[in-house]
Amino acid sequence: MAYSIGIDLGGTQIKAAAFSPDGDVLHRETSPTRDGDRVDGVPAWADTIRRLLTTWTTRFGSEPGRVGLAAPGLPAKDARSIQSMPERMDGLEGFDWGRFLERADGVEVLNDAHAALLGEVWKGAARGLTDAVLLTLGTGVGGAVLANGRLLRGAIGRAGHLGHISLDLHGPVSILRTPGAIEELIGECSLPTRTGGRFDTTRALLAAAESGDAAAAEVWVRSIRALACAIVSYINVLDPEVVILGGGITEAGELLWHPLEQELEQLEWRPGGHRVPIVRAELGGWAGAYGAAAPVLA
Amino acid sequence: MAYSIGIDLGGTQIKAAAFSPDGDVLHRETSPTRDGDRVDGVPAWADTIRRLLTTWTTRFGSEPGRVGLAAPGLPAKDARSIQSMPERMDGLEGFDWGRFLERADGVEVLNDAHAALLGEVWKGAARGLTDAVLLTLGTGVGGAVLANGRLLRGAIGRAGHLGHISLDLHGPVSILRTPGAIEELIGECSLPTRTGGRFDTTRALLAAAESGDAAAAEVWVRSIRALACAIVSYINVLDPEVVILGGGITEAGELLWHPLEQELEQLEWRPGGHRVPIVRAELGGWAGAYGAAAPVLA
Repeated sequence: MAYSIGIDLGGTQIKAAAFSPDGDVLHRETSPTRDGDRVDGVPAWADTIRRLLTTWTTRFGSEPGRVGLAAPGLPAKDARSIQSMPERMDGLEGFDWGRFLERADGVEVLNDAHAALLGEVWKGAARGLTDAVLLTLGTGVGGAVLANGRLLRGAIGRAGHLGHISLDLHGPVSILRTPGAIEELIGECSLPTRTGGRFDTTRALLAAAESGDAAAAEVWVRSIRALACAIVSYINVLDPEVVILGGGITEAGELLWHPLEQELEQLEWRPGGHRVPIVRAELGGWAGAYGAAAPVLA
Repeated sequence: MAYSIGIDLGGTQIKAAAFSPDGDVLHRETSPTRDGDRVDGVPAWADTIRRLLTTWTTRFGSEPGRVGLAAPGLPAKDARSIQSMPERMDGLEGFDWGRFLERADGVEVLNDAHAALLGEVWKGAARGLTDAVLLTLGTGVGGAVLANGRLLRGAIGRAGHLGHISLDLHGPVSILRTPGAIEELIGECSLPTRTGGRFDTTRALLAAAESGDAAAAEVWVRSIRALACAIVSYINVLDPEVVILGGGITEAGELLWHPLEQELEQLEWRPGGHRVPIVRAELGGWAGAYGAAAPVLA
């Protein structure tokens, strides 16, 4: 059977999913990444993925028809490897997945945020759309853009680094050098700095704000203002049919959506009353694995 | 002969150009827009364009094979008219150009900034590229995006409103409601406000700065910082092969390019040393008329 496999190699977890030719989920599995460990001379995450393929080949009685892999960093032009990932996942840069997994047809390697958007296009909040923005709000702020019905990769595969737009000419500089980047204004990586070391998760910040901590509430108000300004910027540049929000911070629920909608009432350009729907990602942590296997738009 | 005509209907001037099937310029003409005047019951600009077509039909011995028209505002989905242009050019909204000019095949109506990018793709600084950003720096700040080899129009035709990204959460609000929009930080429309009424052109501001006026120099430094932050934001989101700058402010020459390059040295993410070329638009005021006639990418 020509089933396909999508793998999402993340910093802490490896997620893998197998799909039938009709796109039905046949099996899903999550493993620890063990970044930094090595097994038989290769990174532990590579060994885990090789074993997984062997096991699934036995399980399904044949080799998969197609394997796609999503990972952080910028993919090489030939999509056989991640070319640039300077910060972590030692050994990932230049790792040739097709050769390592002995796949004659190769393994298509995608940026993880790009894959997440493809997953949402295939089976989630962007089904049937041609222009969409996905913004993931978590430790960092990532994203991807669907433009004219195709994933926007750009000249060197960096398109969609939505966390790195400037909202303050002299603000704190992001890991990609952007002053006042939205990642520095709402990402959890910047929360200790923004709260004088009091909080390192949005959940804790919001619990304090709910209990009447005015300083915590003020930090959250500023985060939402920054998010709204970022979203209207994306809208004015990209004019998407929808803005999809994913990532751990969206677990804030109405504490996020309600003030965000209020800000957008003020800030969004709505020609002829047209407003862009802001919706929640549907696939959660599985979007990247699904997108790596997606038969669409690659 | 199946020549084609591109018309750029601007706020002060109408520019029209005729092209041979090979794309050679056969003729160009500039007329005043006379916004607000009426002739024979129609806006003066419509009458001027109708007369121009009649004259050129006589000149070339046949009707043009194709007519395209660029104008400010958002085109309708069917591209027969400008659907939304609330601020000026009374009568332009909903004006059906194909019917008015009695063209059986219709007249394709484009947003003027979109047309300018198509012109640069056809015969200017974006020839042969698939991913490009055009930014026009003048009274306002406009732009357009080429993504995956196609003009990015977006869901309702507003894509490329690059002047309306936020660079200050609490800055002055643009005509499209964006706080701290780059248009408010470098556009000439905002120069009187930014200089306490002392200057209303970049040329005058720079002349004063060159003569040792420290306050004028400081305003310019801030403008360039804002422009650099905007450009790195576009780069991180869109990952273009090139950023093309056009509009009157680029006449500042090295007074613009030199400090801009210095800022980008600091602010641009350059993975593997890759830097995005920032180049000047090549077609000047003719980009829109050329793009309206461009046989590509429509």
